[in-house]
Amino acid sequence: MKQNIETFLGCDAEYKESGIVIFGAPFDSTTSYRPGTRFASKVMRAESYQIETYSPILDKDLTDKKIFDGGDLELCFGDTNSALNDIETFTEKIFDDKKFPLMIGGEHLVTLGAFRAALENFPNIAVIQLDAHTDLRDDYLGAKFSHATVIRRIHDLIGDGKIFQFGIRSGDREEFNFAAKHTRLQKFNFDGLEKVLDELQDTPVYLTIDLDVLDPSIFPGTGTPEPDGATVAELLAAIFKITDRVNVVAADLVELSPTYDPSGISTAAALKILREFLLALDR
Amino acid sequence: MKQNIETFLGCDAEYKESGIVIFGAPFDSTTSYRPGTRFASKVMRAESYQIETYSPILDKDLTDKKIFDGGDLELCFGDTNSALNDIETFTEKIFDDKKFPLMIGGEHLVTLGAFRAALENFPNIAVIQLDAHTDLRDDYLGAKFSHATVIRRIHDLIGDGKIFQFGIRSGDREEFNFAAKHTRLQKFNFDGLEKVLDELQDTPVYLTIDLDVLDPSIFPGTGTPEPDGATVAELLAAIFKITDRVNVVAADLVELSPTYDPSGISTAAALKILREFLLALDR
Amino acid sequence: MKQNIETFLGCDAEYKESGIVIFGAPFDSTTSYRPGTRFASKVMRAESYQIETYSPILDKDLTDKKIFDGGDLELCFGDTNSALNDIETFTEKIFDDKKFPLMIGGEHLVTLGAFRAALENFPNIAVIQLDAHTDLRDDYLGAKFSHATVIRRIHDLIGDGKIFQFGIRSGDREEFNFAAKHTRLQKFNFDGLEKVLDELQDTPVYLTIDLDVLDPSIFPGTGTPEPDGATVAELLAAIFKITDRVNVVAADLVELSPTYDPSGISTAAALKILREFLLALDR
Amino acid sequence: MKQNIETFLGCDAEYKESGIVIFGAPFDSTTSYRPGTRFASKVMRAESYQIETYSPILDKDLTDKKIFDGGDLELCFGDTNSALNDIETFTEKIFDDKKFPLMIGGEHLVTLGAFRAALENFPNIAVIQLDAHTDLRDDYLGAKFSHATVIRRIHDLIGDGKIFQFGIRSGDREEFNFAAKHTRLQKFNFDGLEKVLDELQDTPVYLTIDLDVLDPSIFPGTGTPEPDGATVAELLAAIFKITDRVNVVAADLVELSPTYDPSGISTAAALKILREFLLALDR
Amino acid sequence: MKQNIETFLGCDAEYKESGIVIFGAPFDSTTSYRPGTRFASKVMRAESYQIETYSPILDKDLTDKKIFDGGDLELCFGDTNSALNDIETFTEKIFDDKKFPLMIGGEHLVTLGAFRAALENFPNIAVIQLDAHTDLRDDYLGAKFSHATVIRRIHDLIGDGKIFQFGIRSGDREEFNFAAKHTRLQKFNFDGLEKVLDELQDTPVYLTIDLDVLDPSIFPGTGTPEPDGATVAELLAAIFKITDRVNVVAADLVELSPTYDPSGISTAAALKILREFLLALDR
Amino acid sequence: MKQNIETFLGCDAEYKESGIVIFGAPFDSTTSYRPGTRFASKVMRAESYQIETYSPILDKDLTDKKIFDGGDLELCFGDTNSALNDIETFTEKIFDDKKFPLMIGGEHLVTLGAFRAALENFPNIAVIQLDAHTDLRDDYLGAKFSHATVIRRIHDLIGDGKIFQFGIRSGDREEFNFAAKHTRLQKFNFDGLEKVLDELQDTPVYLTIDLDVLDPSIFPGTGTPEPDGATVAELLAAIFKITDRVNVVAADLVELSPTYDPSGISTAAALKILREFLLALDR
Repeated sequence: MKQNIETFLGCDAEYKESGIVIFGAPFDSTTSYRPGTRFASKVMRAESYQIETYSPILDKDLTDKKIFDGGDLELCFGDTNSALNDIETFTEKIFDDKKFPLMIGGEHLVTLGAFRAALENFPNIAVIQLDAHTDLRDDYLGAKFSHATVIRRIHDLIGDGKIFQFGIRSGDREEFNFAAKHTRLQKFNFDGLEKVLDELQDTPVYLTIDLDVLDPSIFPGTGTPEPDGATVAELLAAIFKITDRVNVVAADLVELSPTYDPSGISTAAALKILREFLLALDR
Repeated sequence: MKQNIETFLGCDAEYKESGIVIFGAPFDSTTSYRPGTRFASKVMRAESYQIETYSPILDKDLTDKKIFDGGDLELCFGDTNSALNDIETFTEKIFDDKKFPLMIGGEHLVTLGAFRAALENFPNIAVIQLDAHTDLRDDYLGAKFSHATVIRRIHDLIGDGKIFQFGIRSGDREEFNFAAKHTRLQKFNFDGLEKVLDELQDTPVYLTIDLDVLDPSIFPGTGTPEPDGATVAELLAAIFKITDRVNVVAADLVELSPTYDPSGISTAAALKILREFLLALDR
Repeated sequence: MKQNIETFLGCDAEYKESGIVIFGAPFDSTTSYRPGTRFASKVMRAESYQIETYSPILDKDLTDKKIFDGGDLELCFGDTNSALNDIETFTEKIFDDKKFPLMIGGEHLVTLGAFRAALENFPNIAVIQLDAHTDLRDDYLGAKFSHATVIRRIHDLIGDGKIFQFGIRSGDREEFNFAAKHTRLQKFNFDGLEKVLDELQDTPVYLTIDLDVLDPSIFPGTGTPEPDGATVAELLAAIFKITDRVNVVAADLVELSPTYDPSGISTAAALKILREFLLALDR
Repeated sequence: MKQNIETFLGCDAEYKESGIVIFGAPFDSTTSYRPGTRFASKVMRAESYQIETYSPILDKDLTDKKIFDGGDLELCFGDTNSALNDIETFTEKIFDDKKFPLMIGGEHLVTLGAFRAALENFPNIAVIQLDAHTDLRDDYLGAKFSHATVIRRIHDLIGDGKIFQFGIRSGDREEFNFAAKHTRLQKFNFDGLEKVLDELQDTPVYLTIDLDVLDPSIFPGTGTPEPDGATVAELLAAIFKITDRVNVVAADLVELSPTYDPSGISTAAALKILREFLLALDR
Repeated sequence: MKQNIETFLGCDAEYKESGIVIFGAPFDSTTSYRPGTRFASKVMRAESYQIETYSPILDKDLTDKKIFDGGDLELCFGDTNSALNDIETFTEKIFDDKKFPLMIGGEHLVTLGAFRAALENFPNIAVIQLDAHTDLRDDYLGAKFSHATVIRRIHDLIGDGKIFQFGIRSGDREEFNFAAKHTRLQKFNFDGLEKVLDELQDTPVYLTIDLDVLDPSIFPGTGTPEPDGATVAELLAAIFKITDRVNVVAADLVELSPTYDPSGISTAAALKILREFLLALDR
Repeated sequence: MKQNIETFLGCDAEYKESGIVIFGAPFDSTTSYRPGTRFASKVMRAESYQIETYSPILDKDLTDKKIFDGGDLELCFGDTNSALNDIETFTEKIFDDKKFPLMIGGEHLVTLGAFRAALENFPNIAVIQLDAHTDLRDDYLGAKFSHATVIRRIHDLIGDGKIFQFGIRSGDREEFNFAAKHTRLQKFNFDGLEKVLDELQDTPVYLTIDLDVLDPSIFPGTGTPEPDGATVAELLAAIFKITDRVNVVAADLVELSPTYDPSGISTAAALKILREFLLALDR
């Protein structure tokens, strides 16, 4: 008899043969409003059996790909530095083995850990962020490392002209002022994405998808729901453009909070986006 | 003093005088993912008092129609054959009395029982299916009779060219391959509906509406929510076209699962669609 | 040490210096279907800390305005007249002090109390109503004062040609007949709003926003959800037109029912609309 | 075909043959804290099919009794006087026909309507109240008629020495002072019940059971949960003593609020208590 | 890197070395009232990380035992016979390998499958049932195989004097009459358990624990909550007596329904009972 | 007009005149299982209006006492040290002003901050802990400061013989071994409390009440529910003994998690315990 192995979307290949490694980063200690993203990867795995591996949009099937599910990291709640370091180390190992890391959050801060590993491997890396919030605060209630400061910390590392923000519809005035000077920020939607992709033709890209970029009607299960967001179709269209035209070298999906998703539709949306992203990725 | 009679939307005419008979088929034993559609008819009746009988869209009122509410069938959970036979027998009686049967599911499999009765009365009947899923599996975990195989079982009975599927956005690869050969399947939306209706001018039509064709944002309360579905307005427009142009002889609304509808909006949507369908129907 | 003061959206100016007074009217005794709007103002204050004071749409910030939060009125459940009188008295005081009253319901009936105070101060006042329901019944189960009769009662006071209804998609036949003769009613959407605003150039306007004008997908938390409503973007666009072009002298936001909002997205929508309205208002 | 009749616990006898008439009084307009008792009778009927008609405690079966379910009264929300009058009138009719009225609330205030009818028929009637709260306020936020004043209003009608309160564990100081002078009040439990029953041998009794006398662990679904209450077994024992030893002429069960009962255990408890009471009653 | 293995309570021994095999039987197709027990084993595994492996009651630790988690069976919803056969076959394999089968339901009917395998291996086996319900119906809505008939079906196999029922507090009159003649039934509690255990000294015992024997206050998450049940302490005391004094050869825990357990306390209770049972078992 | 001030249980005295200062410590960053205690103080204040200020148990009224509500501390999520320091500083200020600090958690770790301030003022202080869990781990997933290590950290500060634990029913083997050597631990209940109180006659006492010492049936809303706990009556009896016989100099109530309390009964229990504690305290 064999043991009970649970994976995202039937991603059950061996590590060795896989081009993509997917793993969970269940951490939400800095979440200021409504915690719960720590449960995202666990719930997504548990609900994976409801979703088909075949995409009628792309006419592709996950059963034709080799993807390894690395399980969830054991991160220390309440110790932000240690959590980020553990994420960085794990991601480095994946890069060392020439594989593509796909991280499932957790709050948005987890991106910083994975990004630091990516930056070591791709010094000229750029970031495409699909998000409702700028995440550009310099500190949050005194904390430098927070879900609300994560993109600012990334800017600390890579400087101006490397961060491309889309779908942004919330932030304080100062954040938008900062963005005006230091990042490329598209308010409300994904307009201008093609132009950015043209510019990034020869640049490795870290893609971070904060799922709260979606409208709260279809994605209520998140820490800070912000009305007037994207549809699933609009988000998928943006993802397909990105995977089509630039060299994505690492990615993450963050901020699903099953605690605030009583009907399960947010998890269903997250899983569909995950499947389409995996299928669109040329790995 | 009179007893406490509860009906859908005030459908309280006598059987004899009614052209339409509406009834519940509370059965969900084959539901593989999240059960609960068994409660749909009960909850829809209980919530009916919140909805007006008048439609400002059609400028018609249910109080001007004669509709009998036949209550809920007592179906045997766990015995699929017996449940389907009971549905078939009940529907036959309605046809015998020259009335229009409108069944409220229950899971989609209940359609098979009502359809078998319809087929006996209308040998050249066609099926229009509005649904998120193909439901074309040949078996599901070994079971031939399942919510995931119901349209395939209908195909067994009527063969190629008689099944018209709209709004489909989920299924496995094999199902889509089967559809390509044996049914007319429109992915994602209702495009091409007019053309199909033109072809079906002289054909009796069984209309089966799986409410999960709607987007989960407006219809979270269903067994298998599938992102990127229709709006209520789009579904109503499709229904109006169908009732306008072809001869619908029987119909059903299935897959409302109140268990996953904490705010009640799915039931509200189901009731509105039911009202508009009843008003649009020329009976 | 100072005490624990809680306000909407950080509206913490002193009364004296404020041009706008916002207050809660927690009353839902006549609600016929699902009660719970009594909790709206309390929950909106409690959740205010999640929302930014800055609007990227208008590029304005609430911290630049002076708004006083007057807390919640202590209204007597079960005694409609007394509740309406208390609302009227409180609103009069605000008008006396030359300030703008912004009331947070409660059920829609609370509008009548505030409107009576407005009418005393602005005898030629008109009403713009954004709502899913006509609210034009003459009585409801025998009651003259009800959330379902509130606009009819206002018509009793100001007569024909003064009431402008938008977004209406539910009511009984008689209500629509009444509207055809006595009010200007736009079914389903906000079409024709500009034309009305042109006509009202020199007229003081009471703006009442029943939040159920929004689609239940984004606003499930309300007493009587009615499918096929407005998006947040559409509602905001209408509000901006109104505040831009006519002289709004008082306003209210009613019918948020947190009891039916398990994921909190309805409260988030209500808060965003409140913020944008406050920022758009020239006070 | 026959229509869909729904009753409490299969209480489906004809009016004429029945010794007991059970009916719902769905009213909660004066509820100051958490509304929702309006849904009690409706939900109890809907859930009745889960409960057996046979009691292994009493070894009796409801199928051996004749009980008529009179449905729910249509009470006007927001107009307390009119609601109480409607209840009174309906109860009078039952007394006129020499039957036993058993009312299902609604909030506790509904007791006043039924009690007034009882008092007309039994001028020397006494009241036994099983409750967590004294309900002896003289007014509540200015209102004379409220769930918090109902027993005080009854005292207005029948004076000292006629009201017997058990299980009381909440109230303000003044209420307990009032009780010390004007009622017989047993704090926390049912001690002393036998003695009271001995005294009431020749007195007709109105029994009012506020279900919040139960501990919130087993009965969370109520407007004002008060910790440290009775078990179901303790409440049943008290009920059996009362029905055994005194002449109960009317009764009610109030304050079930399904809105706060997500797991349904409160409704299950209410139904069991209702069944046992009906079986214990010598009618 | 290793894959993500999920087990009950850290039961992660290899099959070969284990004396106990625990497995899930996720089936609830015959559930007549509220489905959801299909999720029990999955949720219990997912929540296992919250519970300690050490018992301060027994001063023993699960880390000192060898237990294999066999995962969940893939049972066919809607086909009762096939599901029961699959359970029987799987349990037989465990017996063949001289191990102890511990099944986690699923509805109570799953017991029949495991029991049939036990009966083959232990022809003189007796059954101890801890349950709120008799489960002695001869059929349920026409179905011979149902959660409400499971003990009757077992009686069909082993006849009189072999079934010992404790804690029973619900059933119809006929079931109690049947029990009076054919089983030993203790109403309401576990009185007389010691005496029964004395009689069963030399008899192999199948222990079936329907968790609804617990009071709904501590175990709301079940299909048919029945007030006035056992405490966790009482149930554990009964279990310890049984494991101490008789030869239990197989066991199951059934009827946890996470769908009706919003706060998670029912799952917590089920896990604690499972841990204590495993530790008390002399394997 | 005055601003909207919200307090626990009407504790609205001025700081100067108050002998007790109550404040919230909304922090749950180290919670390993289910977060949400951050909302406890906020929800307790919001629900305070439902609870009477008078206790029929003690025949005392909060309106006769002077208590200041200091609001909630603004603690930095994700930075444990900074949070503990802020709590310590705030508590020191209260001691400096010769007042009694009563802290509402948050997770149990917040106790450490307040305790450090108490230790500075009362060097020979002892701790009485009412709790389901030992909280004696030396580290938790590598973290020294965690809700699971808080009592161990206190032991680091005050050593053997100063910590008295009651009601403990969960922990790992090592924790119980540690307790056997270094603390006084009473398993499962409050037995032996009087004896301990006799010994502590001349010792200042810090009383920490982890509300999960209560049974999950009455207190489901907590991070880690552990079956078989105390009743509210038992806990109150223990509290009364403590306040009666020893010199309590500071106290806290921790681990209410409103997120897992859908019916609100846990908050109701917490408020009642808070009221009784405040009334029993001789300040």
